[in-house]
Amino acid sequence: MTIAEKPAAETSFLACIADDMAAVEQVLENEIRSDVKAAYAISGHTLSAGGKRLRPALVVLAARAVSAAFPTRTVHASAAAAELIHMASLIHDDVVDGSEERRGRPTANAAFGNQISVLVGDYLLAKSIYLAAREGNMDVIRVFSQVTVGLSEGEVLQLSSAGDVDTSEETYRLIIEKKTAGFIAGCCEIGAMLAEATDQVREALADYGMKCGLAFQIADDLLDYVGDPRETGKALDGDLREGKITLPLILALRDSDADVRTQLHAMLEDPEALTDIDIKAVHAAIAACNGYARAADAAAELALDAKRALDVVPASVYRDSLIALADYAVNRRR
Amino acid sequence: MTIAEKPAAETSFLACIADDMAAVEQVLENEIRSDVKAAYAISGHTLSAGGKRLRPALVVLAARAVSAAFPTRTVHASAAAAELIHMASLIHDDVVDGSEERRGRPTANAAFGNQISVLVGDYLLAKSIYLAAREGNMDVIRVFSQVTVGLSEGEVLQLSSAGDVDTSEETYRLIIEKKTAGFIAGCCEIGAMLAEATDQVREALADYGMKCGLAFQIADDLLDYVGDPRETGKALDGDLREGKITLPLILALRDSDADVRTQLHAMLEDPEALTDIDIKAVHAAIAACNGYARAADAAAELALDAKRALDVVPASVYRDSLIALADYAVNRRR
Repeated sequence: MTIAEKPAAETSFLACIADDMAAVEQVLENEIRSDVKAAYAISGHTLSAGGKRLRPALVVLAARAVSAAFPTRTVHASAAAAELIHMASLIHDDVVDGSEERRGRPTANAAFGNQISVLVGDYLLAKSIYLAAREGNMDVIRVFSQVTVGLSEGEVLQLSSAGDVDTSEETYRLIIEKKTAGFIAGCCEIGAMLAEATDQVREALADYGMKCGLAFQIADDLLDYVGDPRETGKALDGDLREGKITLPLILALRDSDADVRTQLHAMLEDPEALTDIDIKAVHAAIAACNGYARAADAAAELALDAKRALDVVPASVYRDSLIALADYAVNRRR
Repeated sequence: MTIAEKPAAETSFLACIADDMAAVEQVLENEIRSDVKAAYAISGHTLSAGGKRLRPALVVLAARAVSAAFPTRTVHASAAAAELIHMASLIHDDVVDGSEERRGRPTANAAFGNQISVLVGDYLLAKSIYLAAREGNMDVIRVFSQVTVGLSEGEVLQLSSAGDVDTSEETYRLIIEKKTAGFIAGCCEIGAMLAEATDQVREALADYGMKCGLAFQIADDLLDYVGDPRETGKALDGDLREGKITLPLILALRDSDADVRTQLHAMLEDPEALTDIDIKAVHAAIAACNGYARAADAAAELALDAKRALDVVPASVYRDSLIALADYAVNRRR
């Protein structure tokens, strides 16, 4: 589904920054250009697949929520840099997971192969720093490089925990903090810094981003179990089949009766061999311990915390939009 | 072969910066540390595999050749950042090429798998920028991010030209300029900038690096055909089997008789299916058009150009070392 087809209602709270986001899109289209045809083609394929552009939107919203007076060009460039990092990370994730579809379209690796997708991911990551460096703001580069270190550490930790039935809720939180929430917090912090927020407001926006990011990822992992593939654009139970142990399953592995736990352990020894009957049994075990509702509650609580963090930010249409985004993070269906 | 086992004679010209290089090694050992065990383990595996450390050495040599007064800490950090970028690129290259050995040791992908190696490559790339950002020199970040964009573009171009029998010498030069020489030029330029070189000297050192890098890569590609696997630590004819068209083969494809060209075209339609007899025929075709000697001459001429570029740099033991490094680039056997 491309951006144009996306129901407007879903992210209507971003209407107040539509002009900014159009400018960011323009920066992105310029930045991915390369004389090397394959680099341009694959970057273009990934960019045109659309996506929610939440990370750039958060850079812009955080800046606008702080002050009307900020360096517009640098904010737009930093917002675009965030999306480039995200694109690079999606391309590499899809290679690592062997995913064939994202947002209802073939992934870069499915369309162009794993080898070149690894290299084009590197290209986009390098481009993001190059773009940020051209703008010349060292704080932006410091935050984004730190975010990218955390992002890759989170992915490594996730992969090395795959299939580990002893994965704790604490480890899961660390993974999603590093791979998702730290990035979203960084986007908010950069927007705040560029608009010269006070320390208190900057920290509040970073805190908002962290909580919002945790909520977003928990909801995302939940959608993998209970979403509608026609809406999410990807097959159900993908995480389970890859051995990724996310919150609903952690709850079932921890809180089920001993015999169910034994059954789950046996099935997760070879996640790729899971049959449809196994998958149904996993769903039943999660439902039996109320795992879906508890994961949804955890996300909802984090979204509440995120919104509360905004109390020190002056009221504005942009703050309203940040509040709506926190709700969207947990209520979205794709 | 680890650094300790390396014959001292081979890179004895680096003795004048031994203290600097020990400091750089220390920075590298600190920087790869991660709470995420797998990220640390794989980074450590790659770091301890040794390697020539030519890129960091060039940052240091260029700085010392310009002036004794330079920010030592920033030079060492920038030198380490260069090696981190190089390590990331080697890890991803080995994934892309499916290489199992490098420097006589298992590659990261062979030892730990492709998936996690992709992610750890990203980790090291992010770490390089994070390290450079902590030092706070925007010029360093600008040059390194530009270098990394070029590096990945060069790799993409190389991969998308694989098996293309019409690859021109010009395209080959563009590939090696982007993937190798631009990086080496960037290292020299950063050293020069940090030591506050005049524009003339900075440009001369960058020019030296570019020529030296082109010479180095041509010699490297030649070693793939005529090196001694016991010395290079990798199997012969790897490029050929992967369909990588490098200078000796480009010369054969361009300058052989029509019937030999037809034979080469047919064989290169499926490089992975090449038999030992095919490989011998390719070697014979290259030898018949004097391809090895002409490639060696091209490298030697570039090394001469590199050394000439140093004329405007004041005489010193460090300039002598840069001169020796240009010779080493083309005369080395591994």
